[in-house]
Amino acid sequence: MGIHINEQYNELNESYLFAEIARKVAEYQKANPDKKLLKMGIGDVTRPLARCVTDAMKKASDEMGTAEGFHGYGPEQGYAFLREAIQNYYKKFGVELDADEIFISDGAKSDCGNFPDILSTDCTVLIPDPVYPVYADTNVMAGRKIIYSSANEENHFLPMPDESKVGDIIYICSPNNPTGACYSREQLAAWVAFAKKHNSLILFDAAYECFVTGDLPHSIYEIEGAKDVAVELCSFSKKAGFTGTRCGYTVVPKRIVIDGAVLNKLWIRRQTTKFNGVAYIVERGAEAALTDEGEKEVSENINYYRENAKIMTDTMDELGIYYTGGKNSPYVWLKCPFGMKSWDFFDEMLTKAGIVGTPGAGFGTNGEGFFRLTAFSTRETTIEAMKRLKEYMQSR
Amino acid sequence: MGIHINEQYNELNESYLFAEIARKVAEYQKANPDKKLLKMGIGDVTRPLARCVTDAMKKASDEMGTAEGFHGYGPEQGYAFLREAIQNYYKKFGVELDADEIFISDGAKSDCGNFPDILSTDCTVLIPDPVYPVYADTNVMAGRKIIYSSANEENHFLPMPDESKVGDIIYICSPNNPTGACYSREQLAAWVAFAKKHNSLILFDAAYECFVTGDLPHSIYEIEGAKDVAVELCSFSKKAGFTGTRCGYTVVPKRIVIDGAVLNKLWIRRQTTKFNGVAYIVERGAEAALTDEGEKEVSENINYYRENAKIMTDTMDELGIYYTGGKNSPYVWLKCPFGMKSWDFFDEMLTKAGIVGTPGAGFGTNGEGFFRLTAFSTRETTIEAMKRLKEYMQSR
Repeated sequence: MGIHINEQYNELNESYLFAEIARKVAEYQKANPDKKLLKMGIGDVTRPLARCVTDAMKKASDEMGTAEGFHGYGPEQGYAFLREAIQNYYKKFGVELDADEIFISDGAKSDCGNFPDILSTDCTVLIPDPVYPVYADTNVMAGRKIIYSSANEENHFLPMPDESKVGDIIYICSPNNPTGACYSREQLAAWVAFAKKHNSLILFDAAYECFVTGDLPHSIYEIEGAKDVAVELCSFSKKAGFTGTRCGYTVVPKRIVIDGAVLNKLWIRRQTTKFNGVAYIVERGAEAALTDEGEKEVSENINYYRENAKIMTDTMDELGIYYTGGKNSPYVWLKCPFGMKSWDFFDEMLTKAGIVGTPGAGFGTNGEGFFRLTAFSTRETTIEAMKRLKEYMQSR
Repeated sequence: MGIHINEQYNELNESYLFAEIARKVAEYQKANPDKKLLKMGIGDVTRPLARCVTDAMKKASDEMGTAEGFHGYGPEQGYAFLREAIQNYYKKFGVELDADEIFISDGAKSDCGNFPDILSTDCTVLIPDPVYPVYADTNVMAGRKIIYSSANEENHFLPMPDESKVGDIIYICSPNNPTGACYSREQLAAWVAFAKKHNSLILFDAAYECFVTGDLPHSIYEIEGAKDVAVELCSFSKKAGFTGTRCGYTVVPKRIVIDGAVLNKLWIRRQTTKFNGVAYIVERGAEAALTDEGEKEVSENINYYRENAKIMTDTMDELGIYYTGGKNSPYVWLKCPFGMKSWDFFDEMLTKAGIVGTPGAGFGTNGEGFFRLTAFSTRETTIEAMKRLKEYMQSR
């Protein structure tokens, strides 16, 4: 028949969001070269790697340059030293995992994209709207039917189980990207019960767990019974600033059996066939981030972003703007003032306040009328942006 | 309906090859603790990383520890500096590529496993037998029909196009793993013509190109017209000892259009959705390997392995044992003497010569009666192994 493409790719929506933002910003900056724009839209960390992390990577590089210390192919599931460090990290939340339930990867995005490989394409997928676009796109590529649960002002952007919307695969992102909303224990327990009732599998994206405070759950495994129905994806990207260093992990409890197959073994088979492990030097860096010294160093960065978020939420409170996030998340998801639509408010912010944020409409239908600001800028930029926002609000 | 697995995983053969070898070796070593075994089966490099590579990675680690030098999310396709270095590397073979035809990844195995994502599962796949098991396994997972072309003594383990065996996707591995056989220009030109005639896509695995000598092609793009029909996968694993450092690349010529879609754009869409680029420090290490100083340093390692391979092929010539590989490959693929089967010869080598190799039968039906030795051991081990092999042959 000759070669043909995966025709599901024709069903993908082109993602114009960040390209369109870049185009508008470039156009404005060209016309107004003297205006200093404050970039509050970036979803990427900006603080440098912790000293203990770079030291560990340099030491590992030196090892790799010697015959005795050289490491060739590593285990596809990750080195034992890193899996054990993650095991100990989970103990801090009261979660006990076996080391062979933890799979090291080059990042949560890869695992998020690849994990459904081992699941039937006939499964229906339940995805919140708005959310990180990768969940929907990867399932469109696989040809799965997608249904959406509505995240909105009414449920504070935390949709709860609904008997009229049952997915065989259920994506949950908490703290959520882009809304910053974080599920409570009771809410997650309701999702676990729902998954059990309907024989569904939860894919729990915990990429932002390091921002969680107080008694809110960091891991879905803090919920009883979750090991029967949930796979958890997490990463060093936000916790230790690894967005450009690439290390994540996925937890696949051995207890999950589907169609008589142990899901953990299926994932091993996938990973040993299509993946070759993470660089030794990177795994040593990640390990360093989880030592006591590492935790101290990386939490300084997280607290820096948290303080930025607090400056933003204080401003929202002061201005009486409805928002979610900011408290357990680097994202502040705010309702556009004066009933504006997302892109109209984007234009207002850009041209009248010199602030670049992200229009909520880019994350799903329910994002219309909302706007995302992030805590990843510098302190100075954050303070200045909030000052300008206040001036803008007063000038209307 | 509830959650279900990808039932194609039930169609996979369990891969017992290396597990079975490990079991037999452990059993023998336990019974004979004083016997020194020579490991000639490893498909992994053993020489340390070049100094310029570890220096570059240490410098990059330092950069990542500073606010000015920090790198967050990098381009999914790889940094321009590395893509340009690869562009220049290809010029040495007379191949001109655009930088945006080159995609950096965490290794050829990942790309090999992931690339078919963008192709229809209705396509038929043509795979040589014997070969690297990943080609077949990844296509079984996707549910594609597989047909095999016979590599055997008659065609010197280099199967040529056969009108009775037409694949929509054609895998070619040259120099081949495990046979070490390397296609000539004329032979590759025949495959390119065959692919054009049948509207097929070639996936050309060039992972061992750094071992190619003389006028044999390093890249399929040395063949006229290949940019219309071939994607090339390659890696720093063997060239620069990156098996534990993880960096590869895939070339997707912009000229390839399938069902009206530019294949290069489809691969961008796949990578931006399911991948987040390679660590900055690793890309800096790979870049260093391609500088003049780097080429000099890494070629010392390759020459070391080449010399090991020559010691082996000289021994085969002396003993009159039929073999392929060794000249343009770190693998020597030999016919088991005295008409022995692969596993019988494995047992003989283990128990009578203390040599651990790999039974050819583990790589496919046509591997029966053959045996793979690799050049990745030390010089001393290689010399000693060949001495023992000669003694074994004389003792029969």
